[in-house]
Order: sequence, then C-alpha cells, then structure tokens
Amino acid sequence: MKIRIGIVGYGNLGRGVETAVGATPDCELVALFTRRDPSEIKTRTGIPVYKMEDAVKMQDKIDVMVLCGGSANDLPTQTPEFAKYFNVIDSFDTHARIPDHFANVDAASKEAKKVSVISVGWDPGMFSLNRCYGQAVLPNGKDYTFWGKGVSQGHSDAIRRIQGVKDARQYTIPVDSAVASVRAGENPELSTREKHTRECFVVAEEGADLAAIEQAIVTMPNYFADYNTTVHFISEEELKKNHSGIAHGGMVFRSGTTGANNENHHVIEYRLQLDSNPEFTSSVLVAYARAAYRLAKEGQFGCKTVLDIAPAYLHPQSGEELRKNLL
Amino acid sequence: MKIRIGIVGYGNLGRGVETAVGATPDCELVALFTRRDPSEIKTRTGIPVYKMEDAVKMQDKIDVMVLCGGSANDLPTQTPEFAKYFNVIDSFDTHARIPDHFANVDAASKEAKKVSVISVGWDPGMFSLNRCYGQAVLPNGKDYTFWGKGVSQGHSDAIRRIQGVKDARQYTIPVDSAVASVRAGENPELSTREKHTRECFVVAEEGADLAAIEQAIVTMPNYFADYNTTVHFISEEELKKNHSGIAHGGMVFRSGTTGANNENHHVIEYRLQLDSNPEFTSSVLVAYARAAYRLAKEGQFGCKTVLDIAPAYLHPQSGEELRKNLL
Repeated sequence: MKIRIGIVGYGNLGRGVETAVGATPDCELVALFTRRDPSEIKTRTGIPVYKMEDAVKMQDKIDVMVLCGGSANDLPTQTPEFAKYFNVIDSFDTHARIPDHFANVDAASKEAKKVSVISVGWDPGMFSLNRCYGQAVLPNGKDYTFWGKGVSQGHSDAIRRIQGVKDARQYTIPVDSAVASVRAGENPELSTREKHTRECFVVAEEGADLAAIEQAIVTMPNYFADYNTTVHFISEEELKKNHSGIAHGGMVFRSGTTGANNENHHVIEYRLQLDSNPEFTSSVLVAYARAAYRLAKEGQFGCKTVLDIAPAYLHPQSGEELRKNLL
Repeated sequence: MKIRIGIVGYGNLGRGVETAVGATPDCELVALFTRRDPSEIKTRTGIPVYKMEDAVKMQDKIDVMVLCGGSANDLPTQTPEFAKYFNVIDSFDTHARIPDHFANVDAASKEAKKVSVISVGWDPGMFSLNRCYGQAVLPNGKDYTFWGKGVSQGHSDAIRRIQGVKDARQYTIPVDSAVASVRAGENPELSTREKHTRECFVVAEEGADLAAIEQAIVTMPNYFADYNTTVHFISEEELKKNHSGIAHGGMVFRSGTTGANNENHHVIEYRLQLDSNPEFTSSVLVAYARAAYRLAKEGQFGCKTVLDIAPAYLHPQSGEELRKNLL
C-alpha cells in the first residue's frame, strides 16, 4: 500500500511535488485540485485534475494533501480548511505569522483527528532544524544565516511596483568576506549591510527616467536602503534569457564555545546549493507527507512543524534498517 | 526544578559533560560515579564523587545518567546495567554492533519504564541525522562522509602496537580535491584512497628499525594499506608539544537531483569544525539528556537513537517559543 498524495494548486511548487512523488517508491499521486477550470490544466504525468470544491468528496482516496499555494493569500485560509478533512502539509513561510497560522491549523486538525505539518521547506524548514540543533548543542554561541545567491520574489515584486518598471529580478548575495569570517570561527558582529548585497536587473518602460528608478530602488526602506544595492538596466530579452533561473541556497551557522574558560571553539555549518528552489522545497514537502501519514497512523493528531517530528519519520526505511545502515 | 544529571566515568568525555552541564541553565550536576577510589578523584567543579556501585542507591536523586565510558569495553555492559535504574545516554560508536546494543538497552529500559538514548555524539549522532534528512529529501542522490582533519584514536593505537614504537598520533585528513568535487555537485566515484589521506607522527624506541616501522604502518591491512600514508618520526617532546590536540570534524554531503529528467542538481552539506572532539560530543550528550528527561516525563519508554527524537526535545525553549523565535 503506497501513501496516496493529493496536490492543491499547480504552480511551480505543485509541479515540483508531482515530480518529487515520482521519485519516491512508497508514495503515489492520486489527484490534483485547482481553482481553475480542470479541463484547462494538462499535468506532466497525466494525474486527474479536479475542482477544488470536489476534494472533500475524496477523503477516503487521499492519505495526505500537499497544499502548494502562496503564503500571502492562499495558505492562511486553505490550510485550516483542508485540515478539517485531510492530513495536510504546507510551506507557509511568513515567519511573523507562523504562531497564528499554527493555532488555526492545530484547532482544525485536532477537531478532525488529522495531522498537519506547516512551514515545511528549507527556510522555514531545513534551516530551522539546523538553528534548533545548533542552539541545543552549543548553548554558548551565535547563529548566522546567509541566503543566496538566489532570486528573492518579494524584492523583485517591490521593484516591479516602481513607476516606469516593466519587469525586474533581484538577487540576494551573501558577502564572501562575511561568510569566510563566520566559517573561520571569528564570531563577527555583522550589520545587515555587511551580510548580503542586492543585485537588481530591471527592464524599464520606454522613455522612463532610469536615474529616478535607480534612486527609488536603492533608497527603498526595509527592502534596499540597508544594503549595498547594484542596479542594471537590461532588455526584456536579456532578462528572459539570463535571469529566469530558480537557483537558490544559503547557509546556517552555529559558532560557539565549550570548556571551563570557553577556550574551545566549534563551528557547525549547514549549506544548501539548489538548482531549483521550488523543486527542492517540493522534495522536503513529500518527505514530510510520509511523516504525516505515519504520525496519523499512530494517532498523533494536531499541527506540527519540522521541529516536532523525529527524523526517522521522514525516511522510507524502518528504524531497524536505519540503525543498521545509516546511524 | 532543574534536570539532575549524573556522570559515570571521568575521562575526557566525563570532564566534557561536567563543563557542558555548567553551560545549560536548566540542568545541574548531582554526582559523579567511578570505578576508581573516589577519594583519588578531584573534579573541576567539586561535584561529589561516589563508587560506581553506590549509584543504584541514588535513583531518586538523578534524572538522567550520562555514561562516559568507552565503546569497546565499558558501554556494552554498563549501558544495559544502568538502564535498569536510570534514564541513560551513551555515545556508543561501534557502528557494526549498534543493533545488538540497541536491543539489550531497549529491553532493560522498557522493563524499568525508563528512557535510554544510545550512540549520541557527532558520528554516530549529528552526522547520522544529516544522512537521514539528506536521503529523505533527496531520494535520488549520493551520500559522502569525510572525517577530519583530526586524530583517530583507533589508528593511533594500531601504530602503538607495532614493535619499536613508543608512542604515535595519526591524523585522518580529507583530500581537498575530492571534497571540492563533491561540493561542486560532480557526484564523483571515490575510492577509499581518493577520499582521505593518513598522516602519522611516530616516536620510536631508541635503536628501533625505522624503515621496518614505516613499512609495517603503510602496509597494515584495514588501517593503512588502502590509503596514501605519510610517516614522520619525531621526538617524544615534539609529539607532546605539537600533537596533543583533540580537534576534529568532518563533512556529510547529500548530492542529488530532482526534475522530470533529473535536470536540477542540489548539494546539501553539513560541516563540523571542532576544537575539542570530546567536549563537542559531551555537549551533544547533554542536549539529548534534556530530551531523555522530557520523553520519560511523557512515558515514552525504551531505547532511542538521535533518529527517533524530534529536534524540539533538545532545545530548552518551549514549542511556542521555538515557533515564534527560531522556526
């Protein structure tokens, strides 16, 4: 008996989950649900497509529903709603709103005697795990998180809202010397500006005031003002050709000391280099779908995050096999 | 109420646990147990020292016992014995014998309604966690583990058993070009020789046949024959002065692909740089002692490994705080 997976939403993430399930012998894809007209969607693997509102009729056909919508508008309502009927996984990544989202989803899952896992991916997700383990084993230390090189969707959108901008892509780039200092165990104090730079590729409307656009970008509060920002104006063709990549990654460090006089220094580094941000996130979602299925079998109902789930639940092998082969 | 910790054995690891407990506000050290004459032991922090056989009388004074003996001779008998009376943690690291050790300790812990966690440290331990997470999220991929640069006790001991050798220290060193290739996502096939080199610093007895010693080292099966090994003969003073360090570390990689045609490549790297191998191991032991205490409170009795314990159990903060501050 394979774990039967449903997908809600067919953007980058939904397509990634479709492919990731194909790479796991113990899971199978059962159905895709969409707000669009199902007849308009052609899935890569040919899984059946249904209207979102038909999902509730398929409760006995789906073990875990993977919610692939966005954190801003979809998941805050979708996850608690689907949690009434299914074990669910989402990648909710608005850090500040996680406690509220958790409370809503937890209530629905407990009421329905289902399992939900929210904020799954790499940050929040694998990076959170490493912050947790790092702080626990080196209580006397400092955390550092670097993101990139990769495209920040939020920052790209912020540029697109500036008058005269047709399209834009923004890369977040860790500062090499800052990473090197942390890796060397120097525990530097780093300002926002010292940790990351921002590089922007902008397609301007014809006749737009380029200097004004550049000024609007580099002085934009919260998004750019605290960073060294470079702006390049390029053609639409060049943007498509050279800046359609979805690579990303980053590093989480815990740098700390032990010893009677804190004389021994230790550096823990967790690093991701990802060709495809959405496909890696999807792969993490599918591993946690396996965990949700197992937790539901055990009756461990309610909402969880990656911090609440033992690593063995994610792995297809049994505890006995893992102790023999992997530990 | 702090978590009350007992230590069994006062070698490098026991001293490390003594210091690590001092760095955790929610734990306190209650007692040290030894096979030696307690009056001969002066602990750094002045914790009371008792004979090993007196431990059983202190069941109501100790929440978790951290067993700091060796895997070869101490832990196979000590851990199952102490598991009859206490929640216990050990760092059993003989990979091939983990299944047997697990079975013995599990039986004792379940009978006693206690929690035990075996094979805690960094390998097995933190490295195992990363192998598990890596395989789970990238099922289509390869594992690579590199150790060092650091002293291998087993290899140093093997050299010391050669005729004419007075003392020795052996460093395991990852091959830079192999690490670089893995980090670049090239998924190389690497032989044993291509992954690590071995460097030996040997103090010979006066008049010993140095060429014979060197030949005996570099041709020693299992330990050195499959590696490029360098042998340096040095004085006893030089060995003490330059090779008493206990630094270690290493890297675990998962390098894999996603996508319909496996066209997207991802590299996960977990890296440790440790000034003190025993003190870092001790810090991991204390974090898992916290977990064992909490699991025992919940009645989750029996033997576990790091793979069976959710990360949140290790961290002093509550689930709510972790979701707010760390996730």
